[in-house]
Formats: sequence, structure tokens, C-alpha cells
Amino acid sequence: DLIASGGLADTAIGVGVDEELISAVPSHNRTFVSRNFTENEVSYCQTQPSPASSFAARWAGKEAVFKALGVKSKGAAASMKDIEIVNDAETGAPTVVLHGDAKAKADEKGISKVLISLSHSETVAIAFAQASKAA
Amino acid sequence: DLIASGGLADTAIGVGVDEELISAVPSHNRTFVSRNFTENEVSYCQTQPSPASSFAARWAGKEAVFKALGVKSKGAAASMKDIEIVNDAETGAPTVVLHGDAKAKADEKGISKVLISLSHSETVAIAFAQASKAA
Amino acid sequence: DLIASGGLADTAIGVGVDEELISAVPSHNRTFVSRNFTENEVSYCQTQPSPASSFAARWAGKEAVFKALGVKSKGAAASMKDIEIVNDAETGAPTVVLHGDAKAKADEKGISKVLISLSHSETVAIAFAQASKAA
Repeated sequence: DLIASGGLADTAIGVGVDEELISAVPSHNRTFVSRNFTENEVSYCQTQPSPASSFAARWAGKEAVFKALGVKSKGAAASMKDIEIVNDAETGAPTVVLHGDAKAKADEKGISKVLISLSHSETVAIAFAQASKAA
Repeated sequence: DLIASGGLADTAIGVGVDEELISAVPSHNRTFVSRNFTENEVSYCQTQPSPASSFAARWAGKEAVFKALGVKSKGAAASMKDIEIVNDAETGAPTVVLHGDAKAKADEKGISKVLISLSHSETVAIAFAQASKAA
Repeated sequence: DLIASGGLADTAIGVGVDEELISAVPSHNRTFVSRNFTENEVSYCQTQPSPASSFAARWAGKEAVFKALGVKSKGAAASMKDIEIVNDAETGAPTVVLHGDAKAKADEKGISKVLISLSHSETVAIAFAQASKAA
């Protein structure tokens, strides 16, 4: 059957896109950063060529994931930390890890996978996320 | 079986992305607005903090949906109204409702679902859409 | 069963988004163009209203496909040519054709379909790609 033939089919149930001016994400503000980014995220962004761009891209990514999950984000509140975007050790690709309320909401909706991609130019960061459930 | 286990799998058959300069969407022009946006869309956009941004984001959304459906839009013609983007009463998330020729084309292709997400910065609106059919 | 009911379900395994400043893609440089774009792509872009915008959108598209495939691009190296973006004869929609290393990598991962969409404003090109495998 389908499962035996190579894996479980899944179905996209939400998508999210977000764009942010890099200058509008106050990544120089340590309180803002520690409230909204995990230690892993902070370590990663601080070692990138342009930390401000990396923080802005991750911020856009978190907003895109909230949209894909179909839940409202709480802006600058602590829950942005519930969406963690880490980099795959092998490919370097950004990967979503959910925690806390975001994970609970995803579980409730049967969401089994969240794909993400990030990009930025010199001034603008954009992100796309897609949430799927097993069919 | 698969259906009993939680729903019908579906398959993405088209995606669409679009970006628009907010200043390039003439949302102050009442003829343009009434030809291209439904009454629901107009009511929604006019009550948002930045109506011009909301109209531009919906315009980008309509273009993205046309691309995801694999049909050409007719630019500023009436058919942009066939793609209506309303907001879910519960979550506030944008949701696509198809009418007229757009619905006929989607039905012909077996498209059962169109997901959408919108975003804008101060100057640019972007949208992403994904069209799926039941597998 | 599911296959008989209308086709094989598939599952998105990667997404990619990319944005590029049009002015940052040196499409006036013939060596750059011939190393990174196929003859079909060059012919298409050169006949568009704004060749620079079309080259930049395709460049963004190639980057987005690499992200969706989960492989790193080689920047300005020849392998960008492995991702060819042609236009569907009927609808005009951009379509991805993989060659060389990119095709080998996709085959290895079981990727059976890559969807793409491109857009540009006056200054910025963006692209979205989604890679799926048969479930």
C-alpha cells in the first residue's frame, strides 16, 4: 500500500510568507535578542557574515512559521522563542524545531512537518514556511 | 486505509509568488478598486491600519493565485475579482475563495485547495500561493 | 485505491525562497551569462521587456531550487546551469528541468517534481521552489 511503497503521504495545510526590513529588527538590542531567539540561534547568527541580516531572516522565519501553523504570533513576546530555526549539520539548510505553545498547537492540528526557507538582500529579509500533516 | 486514517492526501500542482511595490497599486482610484476587489475585500482593506498596504498585498495575492492555478491573469481586468481573499473568522488568516472563470479553471484541473499567505514591509507587498489537487 | 482514484500522492520534502537585487546580477557580463544560463534561458531572457529583470529572476529561481533540493549551490560556478528554467509552451509558466549533478542529487533523494514561481519589481527579483517526492 501507500505506506509500504515509500513513506507516508502528507498534505500541506498552511503556508506562510513574511518579509522584514533588516533595519526594523533591533538585533543590537540584547533584551530583544534574548527574549526572542534561543541560545543556538544567537550563536549561529553572531558567527554569520552579517549578524543583523541573519537575525532578521530568522525573525521573518518565525513569523512565517506562525502563519503556516495558523496561529497568531505574539509579536515581540517570549513565544517567538517557541519557533526555533536551526541549521542542518550536513546541508546547512534551516530547519524548524517547535517548543512550548507552538508545539502544542501544531500537535493539536496534527502537523507533523514544517519546512522553511530564508533569504535576504542587503536591506530586506524574506522567509517561507509550509506546515503539513500526515494524510 | 489512508482516507480513514485522517483525510485524503493531496498533491501540490502549482505554486505562485508575487511582489508588488505598494506605490504601484493605485488603491486610491475607486474605479480600479471596484473592478478588482470584492465588497468584502474593500471593507476589510479600508479598516486596516494601512489600506494601501492591504490592497497591495491582496493584489499580489491575486497574482500569486493565478500563477499557482497555471492561468494567466488579465491584468487590471474584471477577472481579478474572481480571486477573492477573505480572512478566516477565527484565526484572521487569509483564505482564497474562487469565483467565475478562475473557479471553472480550477475545477477543470481538479484543484481542491488553494493556500495563501501575504506580507508587506513599508514599501513592498509579497504573496505566496499553492494549489493542490486530491491525489 | 488512492493511485486509481486520480494519481500518486506526493509529499513536499523541501522548499526554497530567494531574493536578489536586480542590479547585483551581472547580466551584462557575457561570461557570467554563458557560464550560468542555458541557451534556452538566454534566448528567453533577451526577448523579455527587461532582460536584466528576467536574468535576475531566473538567477533567484536557480538559488531557490538548490535550497529546495537541499544541496548547496556553487555560487557563480558552472553548476547553476544544471538548473534550467524554461517556460511552458501553453501557459508561459516557468518550469524546472534538472541536468547533471543537480539531477543526480534529486534522483538520489527520490525527488520527482520541482515546482517554481518567479516575480520581480523594478529593483528586486524573488523566487519560490518546492521539491516533492512520490509518497
